[in-house]
Amino acid sequence: MNPLAEKLNEQISVSNPHVLEMLSDYGKRIFFPSAGILAQSAEAKAEAHLYNATIGIATEGGKAMGLESITEQVNDLENAEYLPYAPSPGLPALRTKWQELQLEKNPSMTGKDASSPVVTNALTHGISLTGSLFMNPGETLVLSDHFWGNYNLFFNATLGVNMEFFTLFNEDGTFNSSSYKETLLKAAEGKDQITTILNFPNNPTGYSVLKQDVDGILDAVKAVADTGTNVVVICDDAYFGLFFEEDVLKESLFAYFADLHERVLAVKVDGATKEDYVWGLRCGFITYAAKGLANEGLKALEQKTGGAIRATVSNISHLSQRIVLKAFSNGDYASQKQEKFDIMKGRYEKVKEVLADSRFAEYFSPYPYNSGYFMTMKLEHGLDANEYRQYLLKNKGIGTISIGASNIRVAFSCTEESHLADLFDKMYEAASEMVAAK
Amino acid sequence: MNPLAEKLNEQISVSNPHVLEMLSDYGKRIFFPSAGILAQSAEAKAEAHLYNATIGIATEGGKAMGLESITEQVNDLENAEYLPYAPSPGLPALRTKWQELQLEKNPSMTGKDASSPVVTNALTHGISLTGSLFMNPGETLVLSDHFWGNYNLFFNATLGVNMEFFTLFNEDGTFNSSSYKETLLKAAEGKDQITTILNFPNNPTGYSVLKQDVDGILDAVKAVADTGTNVVVICDDAYFGLFFEEDVLKESLFAYFADLHERVLAVKVDGATKEDYVWGLRCGFITYAAKGLANEGLKALEQKTGGAIRATVSNISHLSQRIVLKAFSNGDYASQKQEKFDIMKGRYEKVKEVLADSRFAEYFSPYPYNSGYFMTMKLEHGLDANEYRQYLLKNKGIGTISIGASNIRVAFSCTEESHLADLFDKMYEAASEMVAAK
Repeated sequence: MNPLAEKLNEQISVSNPHVLEMLSDYGKRIFFPSAGILAQSAEAKAEAHLYNATIGIATEGGKAMGLESITEQVNDLENAEYLPYAPSPGLPALRTKWQELQLEKNPSMTGKDASSPVVTNALTHGISLTGSLFMNPGETLVLSDHFWGNYNLFFNATLGVNMEFFTLFNEDGTFNSSSYKETLLKAAEGKDQITTILNFPNNPTGYSVLKQDVDGILDAVKAVADTGTNVVVICDDAYFGLFFEEDVLKESLFAYFADLHERVLAVKVDGATKEDYVWGLRCGFITYAAKGLANEGLKALEQKTGGAIRATVSNISHLSQRIVLKAFSNGDYASQKQEKFDIMKGRYEKVKEVLADSRFAEYFSPYPYNSGYFMTMKLEHGLDANEYRQYLLKNKGIGTISIGASNIRVAFSCTEESHLADLFDKMYEAASEMVAAK
Repeated sequence: MNPLAEKLNEQISVSNPHVLEMLSDYGKRIFFPSAGILAQSAEAKAEAHLYNATIGIATEGGKAMGLESITEQVNDLENAEYLPYAPSPGLPALRTKWQELQLEKNPSMTGKDASSPVVTNALTHGISLTGSLFMNPGETLVLSDHFWGNYNLFFNATLGVNMEFFTLFNEDGTFNSSSYKETLLKAAEGKDQITTILNFPNNPTGYSVLKQDVDGILDAVKAVADTGTNVVVICDDAYFGLFFEEDVLKESLFAYFADLHERVLAVKVDGATKEDYVWGLRCGFITYAAKGLANEGLKALEQKTGGAIRATVSNISHLSQRIVLKAFSNGDYASQKQEKFDIMKGRYEKVKEVLADSRFAEYFSPYPYNSGYFMTMKLEHGLDANEYRQYLLKNKGIGTISIGASNIRVAFSCTEESHLADLFDKMYEAASEMVAAK
């Protein structure tokens, strides 16, 4: 093992040896190449007052060389602000700013030790980095039976991990903490470690946990940790902030896992993608916390994550990071974001209003929803979801997503409020036509 | 194994079964999720003429929702052109355009079957994707003894692959094809498969192979393939195009490997990063070719690569792709690029002119160089490269990169032509001071 990796591993184990255990073989092996070209370049940047001939980019007049056909497309940014490489763990100013925003959005994080956020190529990258760093093939991931399909492609097809599902909803339509606890405990039997991913607001259902759900969730994870099994908890906070009901928890569960137990590592995967309406820019973050894990250990996890980024993609779009950072500093940012939130909330409320009409219950049983971009309904009368989706598309010109045998996801994020009543009317028509034709 | 993966594997093996053998376990397993949400969204995009409620982004008035604090930073692009997600394998128009440019730059590719380029988060990502898709841990990579340090972090620390080095230069200062052949054959003994990476213009030496070197290189690889061992050849063309001498090969070796042998898969890793001076935008490509591998097989490799991208980073910055694509279509692009080439070539020629003074030979033995961003010199008098680098930095304010025990890399890409004489004078002074103080 590289001595730099050994040093990082020591930095982790000195304050929390369980977190070192939680790293995958790869996670234990990876390091940030702080003794190589990057370190020499950093030294030169600070001290080469005459000529700096270390840089792997081209410069002209002391500034990054740029083609005008490129630079004319960007407003109010100097070449130096986006043409050179960003550091592998991300722009320091953006990392600091995002940490401030995390604390504003999650007051319960205050006073708890957490790493500085490391910049990723958005949420999927945060998830895949976490999986690679903490899970060996053959290990188990516990997740909700309502989940984003890409978890399959990464955790199962790519990483070779087993997926065990808990039932998201209990009969009251809230978080099923007994199913969660049972599934976790069963998966943990005889294992040194398990991983669980919690995605709220949930894709596809649009459910976010309620304030009353929190204790049950923490209790389930703590019960596993108490048996001596390590638990990596990934909080996939992609749709964070789009909470539309009073009783919904308005903070990330990360804030609660951050100091739950020495055997629990909390990983927050979040980003500007959905929250700030910049899907194509690719700007996300990974943040770590575990009870007892001191600053040196948190820094070591940042370094390992930066090393994994350096090894596989080198760094993340500097331009995207710069644009997002600049928006965060814009005096109108908050009000612009509020304006979009109000639009999304208006659509959400319209969906609720439309579906309050009891005739819809004949064909559609919506899963609980209170947040995010989507809502998902179970089809009644044994309607096949994919056949229904295709019927709806061919005969009504309406696009929806079918999931499994009987679920249909509707994105109100991309449907105008004024169209929602008609959308559900036509969906009702389609369902009744299909049932009549049976 | 997922049926979609099986289908892609069949598409490959029907025209060239060796390429299927060359895929790693992961490469065999991965697929593009063409039956899931992405496929349903594509159908809806084409047919949902009334409402499209499939989309995982937010829209307003039929267009991507965007905060003005974001969109005001971008010139002359509609929100729809960069805010939504780009497809996982990249923007179709950019892939087509890059393929046209590849053919223009590499006329020898004409008439040879190659895949459409798949967009990556730049060169490192192209290399790491190729490594993951084609190499299992414990396999062997053959590479030059002068190599980019990040190969270590990916191939060795991340992928767990063995690295075997050939001697880049022979006594004439040209490509050492006997060392290459010998190293390849030895590494291939008793193996089903080996991988080799060729990086020209080379980082760190600035050497590109000469036209006369090509036959020896092809012969070495063909000799291995003839023994029945499969060979994956990765052409790392990061610095492509910056060729400063008449006798240098002006095309990628990919053009020659593309139809060399049924047991040779050629992988071209290239991108706009260095060629087009957009380091921080992260825009690169992977292109495949193998003798006998028909279009259906090439498409399957594109799909697998797109699947690997989807699983781990979802997609690459849409904004970066769009900016680069737009620059390629700008009428002034070619002349702007020529202007920068002339600056780089002017610096290269100045370095040659300065070092023609025989006094430098006392301390510096430059490795052959004729291209790219850099040149590298071996220090004489047993000077330690890292000590020399530090002395130069502290006492002369000059930043350079030390590599191994005795090599110093100088980037003329970031040093003005008018500073080069003084730079080497001061480097000479520093060396003589250190030797005098011994």
